[in-house]
Amino acid sequence: MKHSKKFINDPKQIGNEAISGYLKASSGFLHQVGDKNVLVANNIPDNKVGILTGGGLAAEPLFMGYVGKNMADCAVIGNINAAPSPFDILIGTQAIHQGKGVLYIYNNYFGDVMTFDMAQELAMDEGIKVETVCVYDNVGSAPLEEITSRKGNMGAIYVLKIAGAASSGIYDLCQLKGIVEKARDNTRSLIVVGDTGYYLESGDPMFEMPFDEIEYGVGLHGEPGLFRDKVEPVDRVVEKVMNILLPDLKCKKGDAVVAMVNSMGATSITELFIINRKLNEILDQRSVSVVHNDVGFFYTSQDMVGFSITLMKLDEELTTFFYEPAYSFSYKFSP
Amino acid sequence: MKHSKKFINDPKQIGNEAISGYLKASSGFLHQVGDKNVLVANNIPDNKVGILTGGGLAAEPLFMGYVGKNMADCAVIGNINAAPSPFDILIGTQAIHQGKGVLYIYNNYFGDVMTFDMAQELAMDEGIKVETVCVYDNVGSAPLEEITSRKGNMGAIYVLKIAGAASSGIYDLCQLKGIVEKARDNTRSLIVVGDTGYYLESGDPMFEMPFDEIEYGVGLHGEPGLFRDKVEPVDRVVEKVMNILLPDLKCKKGDAVVAMVNSMGATSITELFIINRKLNEILDQRSVSVVHNDVGFFYTSQDMVGFSITLMKLDEELTTFFYEPAYSFSYKFSP
Repeated sequence: MKHSKKFINDPKQIGNEAISGYLKASSGFLHQVGDKNVLVANNIPDNKVGILTGGGLAAEPLFMGYVGKNMADCAVIGNINAAPSPFDILIGTQAIHQGKGVLYIYNNYFGDVMTFDMAQELAMDEGIKVETVCVYDNVGSAPLEEITSRKGNMGAIYVLKIAGAASSGIYDLCQLKGIVEKARDNTRSLIVVGDTGYYLESGDPMFEMPFDEIEYGVGLHGEPGLFRDKVEPVDRVVEKVMNILLPDLKCKKGDAVVAMVNSMGATSITELFIINRKLNEILDQRSVSVVHNDVGFFYTSQDMVGFSITLMKLDEELTTFFYEPAYSFSYKFSP
Repeated sequence: MKHSKKFINDPKQIGNEAISGYLKASSGFLHQVGDKNVLVANNIPDNKVGILTGGGLAAEPLFMGYVGKNMADCAVIGNINAAPSPFDILIGTQAIHQGKGVLYIYNNYFGDVMTFDMAQELAMDEGIKVETVCVYDNVGSAPLEEITSRKGNMGAIYVLKIAGAASSGIYDLCQLKGIVEKARDNTRSLIVVGDTGYYLESGDPMFEMPFDEIEYGVGLHGEPGLFRDKVEPVDRVVEKVMNILLPDLKCKKGDAVVAMVNSMGATSITELFIINRKLNEILDQRSVSVVHNDVGFFYTSQDMVGFSITLMKLDEELTTFFYEPAYSFSYKFSP
């Protein structure tokens, strides 16, 4: 069994050491609350509804990379593959609350739902109004009829982008929640995997993959997806992905989208560009316009070989919010 | 022999398809000149000295990712591991020339030196003044006494950052060249490799690596470096890297630097954060201040397991230029 070489010290210290190193690189964006894994944006504008996100240290660099100007106001981080503590979430909630309430935006995993629900109750007890938008963009994890059972993945980045921009102008928590839900409902992702990644703590493979197959619609650690297929030219792979994403999103001629091509870790940016070329060709053929197009390492799972495509369909309102500038460690946008 | 799964179509079309996909994702930053692999920044300010860079499609996403506001004005791209054509460089030179001359900034590889020298002669024949700064930041590729024999790598990003900012205010080509040479002379990188990457065209490994060793000071494709050593906790690895970089740069108490921790491809951003923590600790112990700190995927070599550390020492003049905002596909900075 192959192992992968990882550049770590004590596996038990990965979370603390990574957050500590992240804080050094992101001092322009955020600061830590005490010694908690609660990271709060610098210079939050007055009077806004707070945007709080969080989750375990699994996908990288979620969610701490997405705290900043017109993005999340706070991220609360758990350990590797473990949801953050509800008490830490409460601390983050208190840190960013300005009397207008706080919106929790996080990915749909069982542990996270539980911990954020508990934190919401704790915050309500303190007199802080909290609403929640749970992201479930991964089309491979359940059929469309059971969309609320789907897992959340890299689509959360676009949902946070909209929430960050909207919360600078919309001061009513419920109205803001409606806009963010629309962004969430308009967002779909699909992950294609060519080969396993290796766990950071142990160097062990996450799963096994035959040498001549790839898998469509998997989860973050290769959780079984929609189907396996033979290796073939990537243009065909992208066609198959889009034949799943576009109908699921009910995307039709004349629609506008933002589109992200993301590496799952070991797939290079040169490959992502080749994938992006085909993605744009397909959208162009379908007369779907691309308002903005991201390509890069936004949401990785160690050295997993594979990529994801995310589409968010924009109406006029979402387009306006998307065009607002954003500045965080992992997502920067200037119109 | 293990092979890696690559998401490509025809290996011969990798360059064209990647550039085509890149253009879709970077239309906000640049445009193509005709059907040439000549990429020119949008909205270049009037009257500036042109900054032109380029090289083969080897490290990703150099150099096309670094064209934009206060970065390079033009990148000319060759095929995989092949220098660009001097005639394409001439086209780029003509496209950005505004009567103040053009500065070529590229990495020190034999083929690139030859092709840029030829292009410079062609440009001079057209009456365009051209000067050259060749980057040689890789401390592992030759001893300090033979610094001009060293290869250029990710340090070129910081040199371009300074050149882009300086060229917006310094309109004399020779004076600008002096500033950029100072940035180059103050920049050092070292690559540490844990395991091979696999060539994009073939999926074949670039080199062999024993399971219990890592190598210090290698080249972009694992070209032999300074020494091999046993796998050990990454804090020790970072210490060894800094014990090479800091004396080579003559970095002493009270100095200021910008510091980059970069993945060579398959090493995750969580690991980079852990490395960055130790890097900052060492600089702090030595009373070297960190003006800015980048962590991410800036210069990769496919799915190579490893990382690089780059330091650029700043004096007052370089600090002023570094603090100018920059906006390109792969490097964005807002003070």
